[in-house]
Amino acid sequence: MTASQTREDRWVVSAVGWVHSTRGEAIDDDWGAVEAAISLVAPFGADSLAGLSEFSHVEVVYLFDRVDLAEVCTGTRRPRGNPAWPEVGIFAQRAKHRPNRLGVSRSELLAVDAATATLRVRGLDAIDGTPVLDIKPYMAEFGPLGEVRQPRWSQELMAGYY
Amino acid sequence: MTASQTREDRWVVSAVGWVHSTRGEAIDDDWGAVEAAISLVAPFGADSLAGLSEFSHVEVVYLFDRVDLAEVCTGTRRPRGNPAWPEVGIFAQRAKHRPNRLGVSRSELLAVDAATATLRVRGLDAIDGTPVLDIKPYMAEFGPLGEVRQPRWSQELMAGYY
Repeated sequence: MTASQTREDRWVVSAVGWVHSTRGEAIDDDWGAVEAAISLVAPFGADSLAGLSEFSHVEVVYLFDRVDLAEVCTGTRRPRGNPAWPEVGIFAQRAKHRPNRLGVSRSELLAVDAATATLRVRGLDAIDGTPVLDIKPYMAEFGPLGEVRQPRWSQELMAGYY
Repeated sequence: MTASQTREDRWVVSAVGWVHSTRGEAIDDDWGAVEAAISLVAPFGADSLAGLSEFSHVEVVYLFDRVDLAEVCTGTRRPRGNPAWPEVGIFAQRAKHRPNRLGVSRSELLAVDAATATLRVRGLDAIDGTPVLDIKPYMAEFGPLGEVRQPRWSQELMAGYY
C-alpha cells in the first residue's frame, strides 16, 4: 500500500441475534453446563436456520459489548491478573478486553425452534444480552490439523472453564 | 426490549492486520498446504504477539471483504450451488456470502516474527489482502464438547477443502 492509496479498514457489523442466558455477569469459570438461547432478529427467521439441527455443534461469533473501549488491551497483560501466569500479548490469550471485542465459541446445539427463530445451546460463554454477529455450523474438518500444543498456563486457566 | 428503549446494535470493527497469500482468488478447495502471512498494523506490534509462539495453532477472525454486500444471503441457498446438496439456511453453512461477512478458521502457526509483527500460518482459507479482525490462540479446551454430528453434504463439501 502506498500513501496515495486509500483502502477501507473499518466496517460496520450488526447483531443478527441476542443471547438470553441465566448468567448475567461475566464469571470466569463453569460455563460448560450453562444453557442459553440465541434469538435471531429480523430479517433473520426460520429460513436462515434451515438444516442447522443436523449439526451437533455451532460456532458462535459474538461481541463483548460490555467491555469498555477504553479498557481494550493492545499490548501485553497477565491473564486474569494471575501472578502465577506470564504476561502475554493480547493475541496470545482469549481475554475479552481485546481489539474489536470479538468472541468465538463452540457450543453444543440443543434445539432449533424455527417458529421463533431461536436456538438453544449449552456451554456458550456469553452473558445475557450479548449481541451475536454470526452463527456457523461446526464441522469436524474445521478442527485444528495436527497435534495441538499450548503452554501450561493456558491449561491451568482452562481447567475449570467448562 | 421495549419500544422506548434504544440499544446499540451496530458496531465498527477495524483491521488489526492483513493476509498476504499466494492465493489471490477465492478457490473452493485445497487450502491445507497454502502458506500465508498475517502482518499486523499499528498500534499492534511485537507486544501483542508475546507468547503466541508457544501455541501450535491460531484461530483467525477475518472479513470476506471482497463479497459484495448486495450478495449477502439472509435466507437459504444451496452450498456451492451444487444440486446434489440441500438448500440450507445461511447459518447452517459456512459460505462467505453471509451476514457480517465474518470468517473464522483455525490455522497452523508456523512462526512469529516479532520484529515485523508478522505471523506465518498454514491452511488459512483467506485470500491475499483479506483484513484480519482478531487472532486468538487455539486451546484444545475450546474444541467441541461431546461427539460431533454433521450432515453428509457437509462432509462431501469438506472432502477436498484442506
